[in-house]
Amino acid sequence: MGSSTALLTDRYELTMLDAALADGTAARECLFEVFARSLPHDRRYGVVAGTGRVLELIRDFRFGEPELEWLRANDVVRASTLDWLADYRFSGTISGYREGELYFPGSPILTVESSFAEGVILETLILSVFNYDSSVASAAARMVSAAAGRPLAEMGSRRTGEHSAVAAARAAYIAGFAATSNLEAGRSWGVPTMGTAAHAFTLLHDTEEDAFRSQVAAMGPGTTLLIDTFDVDAGAHLAVRVAGQSLGAVRLDSGDLPALVASVRARLDALGNTDTKITVTSDLDEYTIAALAATPVDSYGVGTSLVTGSGSVAAGMVYKLVAHRAGAGSGADSGAGSGAGAGEWMPVAKRSAKKTSIGGRKVPLRRLDAEGTAVAEVLYIDEPVPDAELEHGRALSEVFVRDGVIDERYTGVRGVEAARAHHAEVREELPAQAFRLAHGGEPVIPTEYVSA
Amino acid sequence: MGSSTALLTDRYELTMLDAALADGTAARECLFEVFARSLPHDRRYGVVAGTGRVLELIRDFRFGEPELEWLRANDVVRASTLDWLADYRFSGTISGYREGELYFPGSPILTVESSFAEGVILETLILSVFNYDSSVASAAARMVSAAAGRPLAEMGSRRTGEHSAVAAARAAYIAGFAATSNLEAGRSWGVPTMGTAAHAFTLLHDTEEDAFRSQVAAMGPGTTLLIDTFDVDAGAHLAVRVAGQSLGAVRLDSGDLPALVASVRARLDALGNTDTKITVTSDLDEYTIAALAATPVDSYGVGTSLVTGSGSVAAGMVYKLVAHRAGAGSGADSGAGSGAGAGEWMPVAKRSAKKTSIGGRKVPLRRLDAEGTAVAEVLYIDEPVPDAELEHGRALSEVFVRDGVIDERYTGVRGVEAARAHHAEVREELPAQAFRLAHGGEPVIPTEYVSA
Repeated sequence: MGSSTALLTDRYELTMLDAALADGTAARECLFEVFARSLPHDRRYGVVAGTGRVLELIRDFRFGEPELEWLRANDVVRASTLDWLADYRFSGTISGYREGELYFPGSPILTVESSFAEGVILETLILSVFNYDSSVASAAARMVSAAAGRPLAEMGSRRTGEHSAVAAARAAYIAGFAATSNLEAGRSWGVPTMGTAAHAFTLLHDTEEDAFRSQVAAMGPGTTLLIDTFDVDAGAHLAVRVAGQSLGAVRLDSGDLPALVASVRARLDALGNTDTKITVTSDLDEYTIAALAATPVDSYGVGTSLVTGSGSVAAGMVYKLVAHRAGAGSGADSGAGSGAGAGEWMPVAKRSAKKTSIGGRKVPLRRLDAEGTAVAEVLYIDEPVPDAELEHGRALSEVFVRDGVIDERYTGVRGVEAARAHHAEVREELPAQAFRLAHGGEPVIPTEYVSA
Repeated sequence: MGSSTALLTDRYELTMLDAALADGTAARECLFEVFARSLPHDRRYGVVAGTGRVLELIRDFRFGEPELEWLRANDVVRASTLDWLADYRFSGTISGYREGELYFPGSPILTVESSFAEGVILETLILSVFNYDSSVASAAARMVSAAAGRPLAEMGSRRTGEHSAVAAARAAYIAGFAATSNLEAGRSWGVPTMGTAAHAFTLLHDTEEDAFRSQVAAMGPGTTLLIDTFDVDAGAHLAVRVAGQSLGAVRLDSGDLPALVASVRARLDALGNTDTKITVTSDLDEYTIAALAATPVDSYGVGTSLVTGSGSVAAGMVYKLVAHRAGAGSGADSGAGSGAGAGEWMPVAKRSAKKTSIGGRKVPLRRLDAEGTAVAEVLYIDEPVPDAELEHGRALSEVFVRDGVIDERYTGVRGVEAARAHHAEVREELPAQAFRLAHGGEPVIPTEYVSA
């Protein structure tokens, strides 16, 4: 149990709650959906990340005395609303795409079914998580495919907010990265951690040789030596002289990488160090990773471009009220799903200007061809997936929270491992053209809306 | 006192520490500098933000039993290094640019003077904060100048990690924004909070009129009504009918804003609501804000572009070892500044490939002309600013931490208010061409390095 997450939200969520409690609409049973109108940076597919974090943050979304006191002192809501917040526990149902799943425009990656009151105040927090985490995972997945089987390490902690760094490491791991530099991601989420030394370590010592000897003494010859502080070729020579034939790897963090990698490989081989690996970490992104495909590089470390979503640091997710049961309740009670006597679901949507949404509950299916390759994202509006469709498709919605009870298989380290495995499995469904790197493309499969 | 921040760091900081403690170099007195090689997105000036947060995070950088246990279980460092970490308190000196100050390429915005051991392990955390916070502040400052005196509110919490959202609200406020939607930024940093209602509130109700009546009942007629859920003109009409002449403001969140603002203004005036303000919040950035300068808009809400640094979400700050006292100490003691008998400062710098740095301590001055306008960023290398220069310039370095003791004037709510005031003051020194919005420019003043 972490500290309260209840104020990591926009003020208007609470003022809406305040007014809705007063007029009786707070108890209306509502459906909120999280989806993206388009993919980050016009890519061909997106990768859902953040679900496990969202579930834990909702668990910690509690208004304790410190939060209530601040709201009271700042006159944010009425006293009766503070009483309601003091008792707040999410008691509704949350379903959606499994973490690690692919998504496309309109995919309902999360559906929150609860009273208006209970659901509306989660909007900001849920979007903060999905917009950042899914942006990183979507970028990471492209880097993984560009690396064509060579391992990738996430090293971007210093290029994003200190807590976002942990989320980025987690998201990248789900999308197929092998490790992270970030220790908190290791502790909180079980992501393998890695790292040996920076240029400062070499500069601290009187000579590069002193630094290498110290590192090998502390970490063993299997360590990775950073050889580009002064002269790369001399650094490679020295690394082998100090660590011997069992030198684990050398790291290059600057320079003209394709040429440099080739010359370092030749140098290492000439010295007999054919098993010493080469890792590169210099401002890489999916394009420079792909450009190194023909070189004898062994692994990659990726920083800035990964934690900034490679050009699209917010995934464009929105949280929309798509339906409510107009007749359900008129009191200020928070109970969700008090079905008896409730009216029909009424789809609702904003309809001015450009940002038109499609109302109603979306029930998602990924249609697959005979080879198991994805051909369409099919969203049934207010109706279940027909049985016949399930024969050549995969229903995408899972229940994460039922009547307020979180399914813990989706949280913690276990949730991360499950998400990583799920992602590895479902990316096999992508058609080959999904892995084209060029910008400005179309989603690799269309989104089809089906209504009765 | 918050929870420990000690694992919000890269593994290699600790493995370097481990090796340096073993070989005796850990105690060498070192100078680390934080600077940017270039400005975010080729802009004309940058704005420092994050200093106060950094100081508080360093205060909480402690290795308690949970952190030590995890490091032990994962075999990150040797047992003797764990003992050293258990006792870790930063005992060195930190100086730099005041928060809210302008910066340019090479400006030493933070200088950490301590043993190698004490300083190296802060690198990742310090950079995470400055790279994100300064990116947001630098973008925010451009929006403030584009708004030409009209107030701006930060509303981007949902478009960045949930903790970065709080940092973004704080950074924007320092750079001149008037308020934020983020409640935690209000609680933690004293940023004024604002917000009334979203489209979901209108959609929840049976009619737009029901929603408006409810909001006015709860918040009074001085509230801001969101009028673009269905038809803007009808929404404006209805808002006035419901709230009357004392309607505070209407908000537009979509559509062709310049035309829409003009027509809504005309409609409000025709209805006699000449005092009702118009606020706009639709995917704004500094360019669209500037494009609205000639319209009768009264205030702006900015989200995505602000919290993503308007195209440059990481400010490109680095943390470099620039000098050490080679002769100082050879034991594994952590004491910084044990001056007696120590050798001369030795400037150090990486010198391979493209990322060459300039070694030695930089002592910064902003040279001003007779009118008080900035003309150069002057960095004296390893020497003090000459007295004569101080007559037409401003020394930029302040001490934030002396021998481990944090100057609390720079932390908390007080630190934020001081930073905001400082920024408002120093931006007056900028030459007029600093406010040009076009991309691809040069820093508005040159950075000059002066060495003896």
